[in-house]
Formats: sequence, structure tokens, C-alpha cells
Amino acid sequence: MKTKEKVHCLTRIRILSGDQIALGPGKVSLLEEIDRSGSISKAALNLGLSYRRAWNLVDTMNKNFKSCLVTSATGGKKGGGAYLTPLGLKMTKAYRSMEKKAEESLQENWKTIKRSLKQPD
Amino acid sequence: MKTKEKVHCLTRIRILSGDQIALGPGKVSLLEEIDRSGSISKAALNLGLSYRRAWNLVDTMNKNFKSCLVTSATGGKKGGGAYLTPLGLKMTKAYRSMEKKAEESLQENWKTIKRSLKQPD
Repeated sequence: MKTKEKVHCLTRIRILSGDQIALGPGKVSLLEEIDRSGSISKAALNLGLSYRRAWNLVDTMNKNFKSCLVTSATGGKKGGGAYLTPLGLKMTKAYRSMEKKAEESLQENWKTIKRSLKQPD
Repeated sequence: MKTKEKVHCLTRIRILSGDQIALGPGKVSLLEEIDRSGSISKAALNLGLSYRRAWNLVDTMNKNFKSCLVTSATGGKKGGGAYLTPLGLKMTKAYRSMEKKAEESLQENWKTIKRSLKQPD
């Protein structure tokens, strides 16, 4: 959970397929950024990733799902560009929903732990 | 979630206090192992950690909570030995409960994602 508090509880969910991470926090942020910017290179820039790194993350996702999560629009007035497929949008939404539910479900226990933590300097 | 399936969903929860991890998967496994074995060195051995590493993890936990999670029993017939304080037991239980609730809460979304994953080789 993102918060400016000095103590917080962080939940990270990863979808593993064999020895690969099919979806995780970084990949989902990349999907969202591609959706916003319409381009892998712009998304990479906004996230501070190299184009190669972003492309590899997209490639890993596309290969691990039954159909692509990201596809490219070649030609046309704008040329290039990339966008999420309906499956890409669905997976992004499902992942963020998992995160939200997980964070909500653990609030009670987290409060118990938080009460016992020292306030850090 | 630990499973022998080729595709699975892994949830990792970390309690951050300032720039330190007060509790996380590794630290909680160590607490449980100390509780089982009654000794930091046996626990370290069972988890494949150096004694120094285990001791440092315990030290970080102890320093981040209002009172110690692990304490040592010096002297007596058995000498040495370490055990969890009531707070240590309570925090271990609260952490595992968070994990369980988080994993349960995301099952529905996980099924949606799982159906769209390729079966890995």
C-alpha cells in the first residue's frame, strides 16, 4: 500500500508461470502506462526503463498468455504505437482488483501489528 | 501460495518501518523455526542461513517493535536457547493470518487470470 506514513504494509502479487513472472507490479504498471501513452517507448521513458527492457517485459507477458496483452498499430497517420488488447485490459483490471482486495482483507491484522511497531526515526 | 502447479499466484507481504523491513516472509519463517527448534543457530541451520544472518534478522525485528519478538534463555541445564516472546507469537500469527486472508480474497480474480494463461512447458 502506498502511503507517506513511516510504517506501512506492502503487498506484492506475482503470477508465476513455470520459472517466469507472467504478471507482477512492474509489468502491470507498464501495461497501464502503455494504455495511457499509446506507445511502448513513451511508457518506458515515463517509467525510467530502457526501451529494450520494456519490450522484453511486454514480450514475456505476450508469450505467457493465450493471446497477446499488448499489440502494435503499424502504419496509419500516427504510425507505430502500441495498445492493450481487450485481454490486456482485462488482466490489468483483474490484477489491480486482486491487490485492492488483498490490501482490504489484511487491514485488521495490519492494525494489530502496527500498534506494536516502534515509530521509526 | 505454495503449490506444485506450474502456474500460481504468489503473495508477499512486507511490513516496512522507515527503510527497514520489520516483518516479511523470511523473517516470519525464521520466527517459526526458532519457535520449533528453541534456538537461533538450529533455526538458521534448518533454513540454510548463516548464524550471523539469522541473528541480524532477529536483531532487526527486535529493534523495530516496541518490545522484543525473540529472547534468549541463558544458563540453566540446556544453556543458551532462544524463544519467542508473547509479542513474537502474536506477530507471527497476525502475519500468517494476513497472508491467508490476502490469498483467499484474491482467488476469484486469480481464476480469471489463470484461465487466460498458457500452460507452461
